[in-house]
Amino acid sequence: MVKVGIIGATGYAGGELVRILLRHRDVEIKWYGSRSYIDKKYAEVYQNMFELVEDKCLDDNIEKLADAVDVIFTATPQGYLAGILTEEILNKVKIIDLSADYRIKDVSVYEKWYKLEHKSPQFIEEAVYGLCEVNRDQVKKARLVANPGCYTTCSILTAYPLVKEGLIDPNTLIIDAKSGTSGAGRGAKVPNLYCEVNENMKAYGVTTHRHTPEIEEQLGYAAGKNITVTFTPHLAPMNRGILATEYASLVPKADGTMPTAEDLRAAYEKYYKKEKFVRVLPDGVCPETKWVEGSNYVDVNFKVDERTGRVVMMGALDNLVKGAAGQAVQNMNLLFGFDEAEGIDLVPMFP
Amino acid sequence: MVKVGIIGATGYAGGELVRILLRHRDVEIKWYGSRSYIDKKYAEVYQNMFELVEDKCLDDNIEKLADAVDVIFTATPQGYLAGILTEEILNKVKIIDLSADYRIKDVSVYEKWYKLEHKSPQFIEEAVYGLCEVNRDQVKKARLVANPGCYTTCSILTAYPLVKEGLIDPNTLIIDAKSGTSGAGRGAKVPNLYCEVNENMKAYGVTTHRHTPEIEEQLGYAAGKNITVTFTPHLAPMNRGILATEYASLVPKADGTMPTAEDLRAAYEKYYKKEKFVRVLPDGVCPETKWVEGSNYVDVNFKVDERTGRVVMMGALDNLVKGAAGQAVQNMNLLFGFDEAEGIDLVPMFP
Amino acid sequence: MVKVGIIGATGYAGGELVRILLRHRDVEIKWYGSRSYIDKKYAEVYQNMFELVEDKCLDDNIEKLADAVDVIFTATPQGYLAGILTEEILNKVKIIDLSADYRIKDVSVYEKWYKLEHKSPQFIEEAVYGLCEVNRDQVKKARLVANPGCYTTCSILTAYPLVKEGLIDPNTLIIDAKSGTSGAGRGAKVPNLYCEVNENMKAYGVTTHRHTPEIEEQLGYAAGKNITVTFTPHLAPMNRGILATEYASLVPKADGTMPTAEDLRAAYEKYYKKEKFVRVLPDGVCPETKWVEGSNYVDVNFKVDERTGRVVMMGALDNLVKGAAGQAVQNMNLLFGFDEAEGIDLVPMFP
Amino acid sequence: MVKVGIIGATGYAGGELVRILLRHRDVEIKWYGSRSYIDKKYAEVYQNMFELVEDKCLDDNIEKLADAVDVIFTATPQGYLAGILTEEILNKVKIIDLSADYRIKDVSVYEKWYKLEHKSPQFIEEAVYGLCEVNRDQVKKARLVANPGCYTTCSILTAYPLVKEGLIDPNTLIIDAKSGTSGAGRGAKVPNLYCEVNENMKAYGVTTHRHTPEIEEQLGYAAGKNITVTFTPHLAPMNRGILATEYASLVPKADGTMPTAEDLRAAYEKYYKKEKFVRVLPDGVCPETKWVEGSNYVDVNFKVDERTGRVVMMGALDNLVKGAAGQAVQNMNLLFGFDEAEGIDLVPMFP
Repeated sequence: MVKVGIIGATGYAGGELVRILLRHRDVEIKWYGSRSYIDKKYAEVYQNMFELVEDKCLDDNIEKLADAVDVIFTATPQGYLAGILTEEILNKVKIIDLSADYRIKDVSVYEKWYKLEHKSPQFIEEAVYGLCEVNRDQVKKARLVANPGCYTTCSILTAYPLVKEGLIDPNTLIIDAKSGTSGAGRGAKVPNLYCEVNENMKAYGVTTHRHTPEIEEQLGYAAGKNITVTFTPHLAPMNRGILATEYASLVPKADGTMPTAEDLRAAYEKYYKKEKFVRVLPDGVCPETKWVEGSNYVDVNFKVDERTGRVVMMGALDNLVKGAAGQAVQNMNLLFGFDEAEGIDLVPMFP
Repeated sequence: MVKVGIIGATGYAGGELVRILLRHRDVEIKWYGSRSYIDKKYAEVYQNMFELVEDKCLDDNIEKLADAVDVIFTATPQGYLAGILTEEILNKVKIIDLSADYRIKDVSVYEKWYKLEHKSPQFIEEAVYGLCEVNRDQVKKARLVANPGCYTTCSILTAYPLVKEGLIDPNTLIIDAKSGTSGAGRGAKVPNLYCEVNENMKAYGVTTHRHTPEIEEQLGYAAGKNITVTFTPHLAPMNRGILATEYASLVPKADGTMPTAEDLRAAYEKYYKKEKFVRVLPDGVCPETKWVEGSNYVDVNFKVDERTGRVVMMGALDNLVKGAAGQAVQNMNLLFGFDEAEGIDLVPMFP
Repeated sequence: MVKVGIIGATGYAGGELVRILLRHRDVEIKWYGSRSYIDKKYAEVYQNMFELVEDKCLDDNIEKLADAVDVIFTATPQGYLAGILTEEILNKVKIIDLSADYRIKDVSVYEKWYKLEHKSPQFIEEAVYGLCEVNRDQVKKARLVANPGCYTTCSILTAYPLVKEGLIDPNTLIIDAKSGTSGAGRGAKVPNLYCEVNENMKAYGVTTHRHTPEIEEQLGYAAGKNITVTFTPHLAPMNRGILATEYASLVPKADGTMPTAEDLRAAYEKYYKKEKFVRVLPDGVCPETKWVEGSNYVDVNFKVDERTGRVVMMGALDNLVKGAAGQAVQNMNLLFGFDEAEGIDLVPMFP
Repeated sequence: MVKVGIIGATGYAGGELVRILLRHRDVEIKWYGSRSYIDKKYAEVYQNMFELVEDKCLDDNIEKLADAVDVIFTATPQGYLAGILTEEILNKVKIIDLSADYRIKDVSVYEKWYKLEHKSPQFIEEAVYGLCEVNRDQVKKARLVANPGCYTTCSILTAYPLVKEGLIDPNTLIIDAKSGTSGAGRGAKVPNLYCEVNENMKAYGVTTHRHTPEIEEQLGYAAGKNITVTFTPHLAPMNRGILATEYASLVPKADGTMPTAEDLRAAYEKYYKKEKFVRVLPDGVCPETKWVEGSNYVDVNFKVDERTGRVVMMGALDNLVKGAAGQAVQNMNLLFGFDEAEGIDLVPMFP
């Protein structure tokens, strides 16, 4: 049994890691780290875990933890892991970081968007961006996995085949994303109160959201050049789920004609046909967040708009699963040579 | 007292007309038309009206109704009014049509998008598109007002000043709109069941939604040319509210520089400063649907994205008020010379 | 114009007072008191008030306020008003207190349930319990009105006629109440976060909720004796609304037979037939919170259960209107001799 | 592998059976029966099953099905199974019936409450009421299992230990239950539309709900006598979950004193300590539906109200899992000698 430690086990992503790992056949959780709830029973923080988890929350001593477990998940605030990570720790234990600390290769971009000084830029280069469907082979060999953000996983996978195949102009890409409220975390803030979110829709972080450079970097690799995109997140009155609606101009083919729906579908099939967790929906069927809830699936589809020469791409995932804990476990499965779907082969729950 | 008849009084828009008109000081409702509930007490269909409305639902005999009232609101399916409207009726009574029958000037565009034959195209020309803030003067003199759609009211008013002033390229306009479920009507359909909508987000009608040509026509007038836009509606798990997030490329000024946020704000102020029902929010504040719920307000704002040369515009309204019944009453107020805000001077309800 | 001051204007009940008073024809709000937001524009705290309220929040100096206005609403934490109220203030200004400080006549009961020392018990005797339908005449002459709690208004009015007429045994009364989350206030607490409340139902304060003694006292007056009841509040995933389902054993009539549905209906009609804001629904129709949302109505009904000899009573109201701000304004209307319905003659909003 | 057929696979309970059985290691689903969707791909009816279920829906030919599978789940309308069941079928295949047809031993009670003639009363006697925690041994030997209702499972398990041990007077039992909307099924009806249910609470079926006699029969067995109870179901704005709040008078002990909280807790522990799926929560912790969502758990607890001599009992479950499909699989596990928790050892999903 692989031994697992979680730092930040009492946030929503941490809670989801616990939910998934409890039913993973090859691991056992040895450490429920939580600065806020030290010595409190984990099942008192998340009562759904009553009689399922008997452990108490521990502090977040990463050095002690590195001796005790084989892999650490850090579901911690930005800058936390960067501030404590050392070569010694990395020599002892695999780390899957759910924060943004090692996602962006250009440290100045990180520091500009996150308004933080990066305390351990020496590890950025070796960190593997854990978008499994794109970087599977590198993940297998990594010591440090930068688990992608929720919006970014959805945004990238929705557009990836068309960018990669040069079917759309990536600089025309506009991403309008709608997220459930668990993405805002479990902190006690007025804007996240039930009565403020319920029966309400709003955009936030317009033109400034931190997931923007992450999307640009990754889709830039696919495009083979630097790109800029417009990304607008929205808060939706639901617990879970991200829906990304993405717009881009089609690039004429060599013969001057526009790519057809068949061309685009072929691109999606090329990259996702063998991917268990990316489902390219049938023609005419739009992704819905409810159809993937509780599961590790991303549902994607697209519609060509011949009148405007654009394509509308759509992707849906559960922000806590494929957008956070599920993908983190998928990365762990790759790191340890487990079946990639072990523990995350969850059937979406409907309704 | 002006006498009012409603055809289609038992749909959600019809119910909202009743809610508003009951507190309008210059009118009385004489006719609750409803094909589905003839002879049933209106307050049994909408129990919130218990002890407030004693009338029974009547059939939708428009000729009889034209003799009985001064103004008729038709909150009816597409094609209904076009199928029964006559010159004789229009000579007797003002009509405010909440359907799309007379919104689009080019009958072939109507017939293509609505997949219906238009039965009375002879009235299209004289019908006034009842977007009060834009066509106030024409509305005052109309016999027949085509009350705008919910998505269109929101989409147009959000972008109008920038299109009108030539600050954005209207052919780059992408409108990503999110609507509450009352917009889908009160028909008993599986996709509108609580368990199908709750905890769910989805796009629908992608590239084919009927409000698209209406937006293109009206913003085309503002632009002074024919335009095409991309419009994507989404269903959100809330009762009321539309949020439109709109994207367009800025047009460089004569001196080659890009318009600034100040330039854009000046355009919004130019058109909306005196408008009671359009609120241009302070810099940095995003519209939220909850802040306008139950009221006739449209809240708008924008953010310049210098990195991409685009502007992100946002608008929020209550789809049943400014998006339907409230604007219909605003049009009625204009038609009869009442205070434009009478009956619709409602304070948004929060939470 | 009567001048109004609000202390605690930025809680949800305070916000609802503002919503209602802005459309009241006989008053103007002169003071938006809020300890937490001093000097902040009120419309920044509640953006729905943008362009409707230009004032800034002021501190809660009640002595200064007493000189400036004719009536003060205190929507403040328990113990606040009791700690600052003086004879001098009461000589200058009417006070309508939305807290519990003066609701309970027996100060020891207050102190036991609220775990607070009462700082000004000398005013308890003269304070009038502002349940308008029961104490209308006393309210008119009061200086100090103790505005009833949200659960209590609903619970008492639902059972009052049957208790008053001796048709049920009040000591068998069990009240199972379900409340929307605005009742929990606008404080930033984890249990009130969207993701904790949404898709969830729970009881809380079981056997210990502070509204229990208030219900017992008031229904005890109706019964003509001391009574004890079981009261269980529940948190429901909705913004507004309280539904009280109440159970009691029927008391046999003098001839030994059980009271019939007709007997019970006659009792409801006796007390409520002339009451504008209490609607006794038709036989077989259950109250629903949505039918009274945004309005000052209480909808009540009942069903006799012949198998068990019990009656099931049901009542629904909007906790922020009839359960707080609306009833407070109703009391103000009584105090100042306005039409009792002025400003609160609101049509319920559906959906 | 045990072969499974489902009749009524496209209702919400049928969908949940599929979700659970797809991950059950000892069975395979051979028949997705659905009268409404014959020949349609199952994954088109429930898009969450895309790429998970390739089968089409079949008709509901139970005789053909009895030859093809080892066990049939019937998630069908009342009266359906009773109308087609034969000795021949029962000789070939085990049947787990999620309808009420064989739950009630007294056929006249069934016919009175369900207003249906029972077409095969000869099987009622042998049918085992599949409340696993109470009737585990009988289930193991059954041919025909009557799977309990959602409200009844929750209501009975919440009160069972106290009734069984004689600590409460069962004739004083009042059950106030709140259910998510999936309990109302997937039929297209106006009262189940999103806009009708959202932001709303209501009671329904007051004094007449069909689960009443089922509760009375089962708790009557525990009490050792016939009993009557008051049961009131409510519709809550959430997808899943039932919360039952139950009230009863305590029965004095032999020495004349009232049972204490310790006495009551001992009774709960006696019956549930070894039960995996019934969790008796720690003192002071109230069950919440969200804590059991997606799982087969029932969380129960209680609070003594010394002032009134009553106890308030509370129970929470997921109506589609322990209240329907999960318990049906638990019964199947018992029937076939599988691990009782196989396939239903699901961790509750939060949030």
